Amino acid sequence: MASLEPAGSPDAVRVEPTPPRLRALLHPASIAVIGATERPQYGGRFVSNLQATGFAGRIYPVNPARETVFGLRCYPSIGDVPEAVDLAAVIIPASRVLDALEQCVAAGVRSAVVISADFAEVGGDGAARQAAVADLARRTGLRVLGPNCLGLANVGEGIWATASTPISAADVPPVGPIGLISQSGASAFGPLLTAFRDRRIGLRYVLSTGNEVDVELSELIRAMLREPEVRAIAAFVEGLRDPDGFLACVDEALALGKPIVLLKVGRSEVGRKAAATHTAALTGSDAVQDAIFRQRGVVRADDYDELAEFTRLLAYAPLPRGDRVGVISHSGGITGLLGDKIGEQRLVVPPLTPGTVDRLAEILEGRGAATNPADVTGHFLRETFSESLALIAGDPAVEVVAVAPAGSSRVVQRVVDAAAATDKPLAYIWTGSLYDTEGLPDLLASDVPVFHLPGRAARGLRALVDYSRVRRRLADRVAPWQVAVTGAALPIPEDGSGPLAEVTSLALLSEAGLPVERGTLCGNEAEAVEAARTLGYPLVVKAASNDVLHKTEAGAVRVGIADEAGLRAACRDVLANLSRHRPDARVDGVLVQRMLAGIEVIAGISEDAQFGPVLLLGLGGTRAEALAATSLRLCPISEDDAQEMVTEVRGLDALLAGFRGSPPADRAALVSTLVRLSRIGYANRQRLVGLDLNPIIVLPDGQGVRVVDALIVPRPSV
Amino acid sequence: MASLEPAGSPDAVRVEPTPPRLRALLHPASIAVIGATERPQYGGRFVSNLQATGFAGRIYPVNPARETVFGLRCYPSIGDVPEAVDLAAVIIPASRVLDALEQCVAAGVRSAVVISADFAEVGGDGAARQAAVADLARRTGLRVLGPNCLGLANVGEGIWATASTPISAADVPPVGPIGLISQSGASAFGPLLTAFRDRRIGLRYVLSTGNEVDVELSELIRAMLREPEVRAIAAFVEGLRDPDGFLACVDEALALGKPIVLLKVGRSEVGRKAAATHTAALTGSDAVQDAIFRQRGVVRADDYDELAEFTRLLAYAPLPRGDRVGVISHSGGITGLLGDKIGEQRLVVPPLTPGTVDRLAEILEGRGAATNPADVTGHFLRETFSESLALIAGDPAVEVVAVAPAGSSRVVQRVVDAAAATDKPLAYIWTGSLYDTEGLPDLLASDVPVFHLPGRAARGLRALVDYSRVRRRLADRVAPWQVAVTGAALPIPEDGSGPLAEVTSLALLSEAGLPVERGTLCGNEAEAVEAARTLGYPLVVKAASNDVLHKTEAGAVRVGIADEAGLRAACRDVLANLSRHRPDARVDGVLVQRMLAGIEVIAGISEDAQFGPVLLLGLGGTRAEALAATSLRLCPISEDDAQEMVTEVRGLDALLAGFRGSPPADRAALVSTLVRLSRIGYANRQRLVGLDLNPIIVLPDGQGVRVVDALIVPRPSV
Repeated sequence: MASLEPAGSPDAVRVEPTPPRLRALLHPASIAVIGATERPQYGGRFVSNLQATGFAGRIYPVNPARETVFGLRCYPSIGDVPEAVDLAAVIIPASRVLDALEQCVAAGVRSAVVISADFAEVGGDGAARQAAVADLARRTGLRVLGPNCLGLANVGEGIWATASTPISAADVPPVGPIGLISQSGASAFGPLLTAFRDRRIGLRYVLSTGNEVDVELSELIRAMLREPEVRAIAAFVEGLRDPDGFLACVDEALALGKPIVLLKVGRSEVGRKAAATHTAALTGSDAVQDAIFRQRGVVRADDYDELAEFTRLLAYAPLPRGDRVGVISHSGGITGLLGDKIGEQRLVVPPLTPGTVDRLAEILEGRGAATNPADVTGHFLRETFSESLALIAGDPAVEVVAVAPAGSSRVVQRVVDAAAATDKPLAYIWTGSLYDTEGLPDLLASDVPVFHLPGRAARGLRALVDYSRVRRRLADRVAPWQVAVTGAALPIPEDGSGPLAEVTSLALLSEAGLPVERGTLCGNEAEAVEAARTLGYPLVVKAASNDVLHKTEAGAVRVGIADEAGLRAACRDVLANLSRHRPDARVDGVLVQRMLAGIEVIAGISEDAQFGPVLLLGLGGTRAEALAATSLRLCPISEDDAQEMVTEVRGLDALLAGFRGSPPADRAALVSTLVRLSRIGYANRQRLVGLDLNPIIVLPDGQGVRVVDALIVPRPSV
Repeated sequence: MASLEPAGSPDAVRVEPTPPRLRALLHPASIAVIGATERPQYGGRFVSNLQATGFAGRIYPVNPARETVFGLRCYPSIGDVPEAVDLAAVIIPASRVLDALEQCVAAGVRSAVVISADFAEVGGDGAARQAAVADLARRTGLRVLGPNCLGLANVGEGIWATASTPISAADVPPVGPIGLISQSGASAFGPLLTAFRDRRIGLRYVLSTGNEVDVELSELIRAMLREPEVRAIAAFVEGLRDPDGFLACVDEALALGKPIVLLKVGRSEVGRKAAATHTAALTGSDAVQDAIFRQRGVVRADDYDELAEFTRLLAYAPLPRGDRVGVISHSGGITGLLGDKIGEQRLVVPPLTPGTVDRLAEILEGRGAATNPADVTGHFLRETFSESLALIAGDPAVEVVAVAPAGSSRVVQRVVDAAAATDKPLAYIWTGSLYDTEGLPDLLASDVPVFHLPGRAARGLRALVDYSRVRRRLADRVAPWQVAVTGAALPIPEDGSGPLAEVTSLALLSEAGLPVERGTLCGNEAEAVEAARTLGYPLVVKAASNDVLHKTEAGAVRVGIADEAGLRAACRDVLANLSRHRPDARVDGVLVQRMLAGIEVIAGISEDAQFGPVLLLGLGGTRAEALAATSLRLCPISEDDAQEMVTEVRGLDALLAGFRGSPPADRAALVSTLVRLSRIGYANRQRLVGLDLNPIIVLPDGQGVRVVDALIVPRPSV
C-alpha cells in the first residue's frame, strides 16, 4: 500500500518542538508515586501497573506510613526522593493535593498527574481546590495532568503510568501509530483501550485528561502531532475548554496529514447533561460542532468500535481520489448487504470497464457476478482470487476497494498483497468470527484496514472520502480562514440602538456588497404610485418601522400587487395593520419592492459561544423552519464549503435544479452570496450578534439572487 | 426476569400443526446424501458436517462411483437406500437434479434440500431447470428446500445438514430459543451464525432457503412459530416471494408474542441490484416495507451484530410498559455516551423519584451522580451495587433499565440477580473486551440481554419499546386489517375512462364520507358571482376540466380573490390560460371554492406491487415534496397508526401544534380522515390505482379538515 500523501505546503505548517516539561510528562524516565500503597486501590494499582508492564525507568513510591511498596524503597515525602523526577503521580485525598504539588515544585519535579478526584466535578470546595491547583500550575510552570483522571500510557516506550484496573504485559495493545486521548479516564483505559486492543490496532499513547486544570485536549493533540511515530489521533471528547486552540491544532493536523477522529459526547440533551456533570466542561451546540468538524477535516465516529476502526483506516489507508467503490465478495448475500450500506452512505458503486467485466467473467466461468459489486463465489478460495482483486483494484472506474470474505491465511495474504500493489485504499470486511485463529491474526497484523461489519465499513469509507476531499482541497490552496478578510465591514451605527429593521439592514448589506432588492421607501401613497412606475408590477408593499421586526405577523406585508388600485389599498392596509399591532411604533413609511419569483432560502449569521460567527443556510418559509432543513459552517467559508452547504440542505438541490418544471435557479449566485455573507460575518464578529437574510430569492439561472428582507442585530454597546 | 407476556386473544391465533413432510425436513431422522464424496467439496462437507456434529440418525451416502464415504456404506442410487428417508440432500450438477428428485419421489423420500446451484440465479437454462423442479414439487408433494442453498441445521437436535465450510462440535452455537432463517446460504452459515455464536446466543434452527423453489421464507417462519422452543425469529431477507403469506405469518407471530427481527437487503439501489441478481427475488420498495414492518411489529436490524443482539433482547426481555430508561454505570464518560445514544433514539431518561435520589446519594457518599443517568463510580465493585441496581429498577419513573459496566463474575451476578428480581427489561452493556474470560462468560450464559456498544443498545431498546407498543395495541383490540371494511366503496364509473379530475373526484370522495370542500361548479361569470354570494370572499377559482390534471402548471388556478371584480377577472384568466395550455381540452366551467387558511398536507393512496394499497401522508406544497417528508402505511390503518404517521412526517407535529404563533390545528380531524381514507383505499383496491388529496387543509382545532383538491386514478378496464 502506498505511503501517506505528502503533507501540504511546508510553509503552512510550523512544527515547534514539544516543550521540555510536557515532554517529561509524556516520556518520563523517573516517576514518583505520592500515595503509593500495596492495597488494591488507585495508589497500589499505579505502582503495580508500572511494574507489571516492565517500566524501564526509576520508580519512587512516596508514603510516610511505609518503608517499602512492592519491594521498592518508599520515601516519606517527595522532597526525600533522590532525584528531581520527570513525573509525580498524586494519589491522595483531594484536600492534600495542593500541598503535595507545592512540595513537587520545591523538589524540582517537572510534571504531575493528579489521579485524585473531588475537584471541580463535585462543585463547591472542589471547585476552589481546582482553582488553587490551576493557579499553582500557572505560577510555577509545573505541568499538571488531571485531576480526576486515570493517568497515561506511553505505549511505544512501555510506560503504563495509570491507576486503571490492573494491566499486565499480556493486556497491552500492539505498538502502533495512533495516539488515543480521552477526557474520561474510565473510558480511556476501559472500552476505548479495549476496542483498539481487541482489534490489534497499534497504539502509541493512551492519555486521560480528566478535569484539565492545566494540560488540556488541544495541547495534547498538538503534542501528538509532534511525535513522528504518531500518524493519527483518536479522541473521546466531552467538551472543549479551548475552542480556538482546538481549531488551531485541527488545522495543523490537516496540514500535516495526520487525521483526527473524534468520539464526542453531547449529541442529545441527555448526553450533554451527563457530560456537563462529569468534568464540568462546556459542551457547545452539537450541530455547530458537527458542521465545523466536517469543514475542517475532523472525522466523527459514533461509538467505540467506529472510533477504533475509523482511526485504523485513516492512519493506514492512502487518500482516495474520489468516492467510487469497487466491491468484491464470495457471496451474493454479503455483497448485497455491503452494497446496500455503501449506497446508504451515498458512495458510488460504478460499473466496471468492459475489459474488467470480460476478464472477470472468464475467471468466474459463468458463476457469480462479473459486475460491481462482484460476487466471485467459491473462486475466492482459488489462485485466481489474486487476479480478480487486481482487476477490481486496477479498474480506472474504481477509486476505493472493499473486499468482504473471511478466509484462510492464504486468502488473507492475497488481499494483503493486492493492497500493497495498489495506491488506492482497500478495506477488508472480515465476515468471519472475532475469535478466528486462522487468517484473522495475519490480517490484523498487516497494514490493511479491517472492519467487522458492512455498515461500519461503509461509514468508514465515507469518512475517508470526506477527509480526503478536505485534505486535497487544502493542498490546492490556502484555507479561507487563513486569509485576511477585507472590505466586508458593515457600517453599523455606534449609537447603541437595538436591532436594525429592514430598510436600514438592506442598505447596510448593499453597501457591504450583497445583492439586495432595496426597493423604494415611500412616505405616502402618491410616492408609492410614483415608485411603481419605475419598478413595474407586480409589487410587494411592507410597512417600514424599526420598531416592528416581524412584519408578517403584524399583517404589515402585502404581496402580489398587480395595479395602482391594489397598491393604494395595500399602502393603507399595511399601515393600518401595523398601528393596530403596535400603536406606539415609529413609522418610516412603506417599502415598495418588485415581487420576484424564485426559490426562497434563508441565510444568516449567528454567534456560537465557543467558536464565534456561524453561517446558516436553510429553506425559506415557516414550514421549512419547522423542518429544520439547514446547513451550518463556521465563518469564513470557501466556495467549496458553500457548494456543500447547498447540497446539505435537504431538498434544496432538487429545488434549485428545477423541481416540477420550474426553471433551474442561479446556484452559482447563491454560492458566491454565501461566501460573501460569511466574510461579512467574520469581519464584523466584534460588532454583530446576528444577521438574518430572510428570504433570499434565488432567481432563474443567470439572473442572480436578491436579498428581499434582512435584520441586523448589533452587539449592544458595553 | 419475568416470562414473556401472555399471547393475545387465543381466538385470534389458529395454530395449525406443521405438515408432516415439512416436519421431516426440519426434524430428519434419516438423511440420504446424493452426490456424497470424500473430496473437500459440498458433497463431502455435507457428510462430514453431519458426522462431526454427531448426528444421531441414519446417514446414507449415495454415489454410484463409491463403495463407502467416510466409513459409511455408499449406495448407487436413492432407490437402493434401505429406507424411505426423511430428507435427501442433492449435491450434483444442476442438469441431473430433476432426475434425482424424481427418483427421490419414487423412493418415498419426504423432503429434499438441493444444494446445487445454476438454477434461476443464472437465468436461461437455469430458470427452465428451476421451473421443472417447481413443477415436480407441486405435482408430487415432495418438499424441496433450495436450490442454491447451503442446507439447514436443527441445533436443538444436533442435526447439521449443511454443505457449509467444515463445522465441528466445537463450532456449534449454544442451543437456545431463536430460529435463524436466511435466503443467503453463505450469510446463514457465515457472518450470521458467527454473530450469534460469538455472543453465545442460543439458536434452535439455522435455515438457508436459497432460490425458494418450493419451501419459502413465510412457510418457514410459520413452522418456527409452531416450534414450542422457538421464542423469536431472526431472518436475513433479500426479497419476499409471497408478500401476503409473509404478512399473515407476521400477524400470527405478533399474536403469539414471538418477535421477528429482519435484516433486509435492498435499502439502497446498489443493494437492490445485488439482491436481485442473486436469488432473482422481487425486492419491493424499501420505504413501503419499512413502514409495513413498523406497523405490524416486525423489528428491523441494520447489520449482523444488530440482528443477533436485537433478537436476543426481544427473545428474553419482558415487554416494557413505556420508553422511560433508567441508566446506571460506573463512569461519567460511559454514562455520557450511553445517555447520548438513548437520547438520539428519542427514548426518555426521566428524573428519578426523590426517594431514589436520596438513598442513592447516601450510598454514593457524595461521589458520582445520584441522578438518571446514575454514575456509581467505584461503588459498582461493592456490595451496595445490588441496592443501587434495585433502586433504579424499582423506581416507578423507570420502565427499562440499562446497566453499563464491565466486571467480575460477582458484578455480573449482581446484575443477573437484579434482572431476575424485576419485571422490567434490563439490558447489560458490556464495556469490557469480547475476549474477557471473567464475568463475560457468566453474563452470556445468563438470560440477561447483552450489548457491546452503547449505540447498539440504545437502538435495541428503541426496537423493544416499538415492538411492545404494537404488541400491546393488538392485545387491546383487533387489528384494523382483521376487520371487514364496509361502507367505503367509491362509486367509480365503469366506463373505462382515465383519471378523474377535481370536480368528479371531490364529488365521489364526499359520497364516500371524506370532508370535502366541494365548492360550486359554475358555467359562466354570472354563476360564479352568484355562487360567491353564498360562499363569501376570499375565494379560489379553478378552471374545471377532466383533461387537465395539473391545473397549477397550466395557470388555471387563482387564489385570494377578494371581491367581485377580482372574481370576474379570475374566471376569465383561468379559462384563457387553460385553453392556451391545452387548446383541445374539454372545459366544464370554473370551480369556485372558499379560500381556507390552515396547514396544508397531502395524503393519497398508491399501489405497492407486492403489498397492495399504501397510504401516504406528507407536507403540502412542492417544497415539501422536494423534502420527501412523508410517512407510509399499508391500508387499512388504525387510529394509532394515523397518530404515528402524523408524528413521522418531519415538521408536521410542530406545524399542527401552532408554529410561530399560528393557532393549533385540528389534529384529531386529520387523524380520523386518514383512517377513513385508508379504508377507502382498502375497500376499493380492485378498482383503484391511485388517489391524491392535494392539499387537505387542516383548519384550526375544532374546525376539522377540508379536502380542497383531489385526483382519482381508476384501474384501467381489462
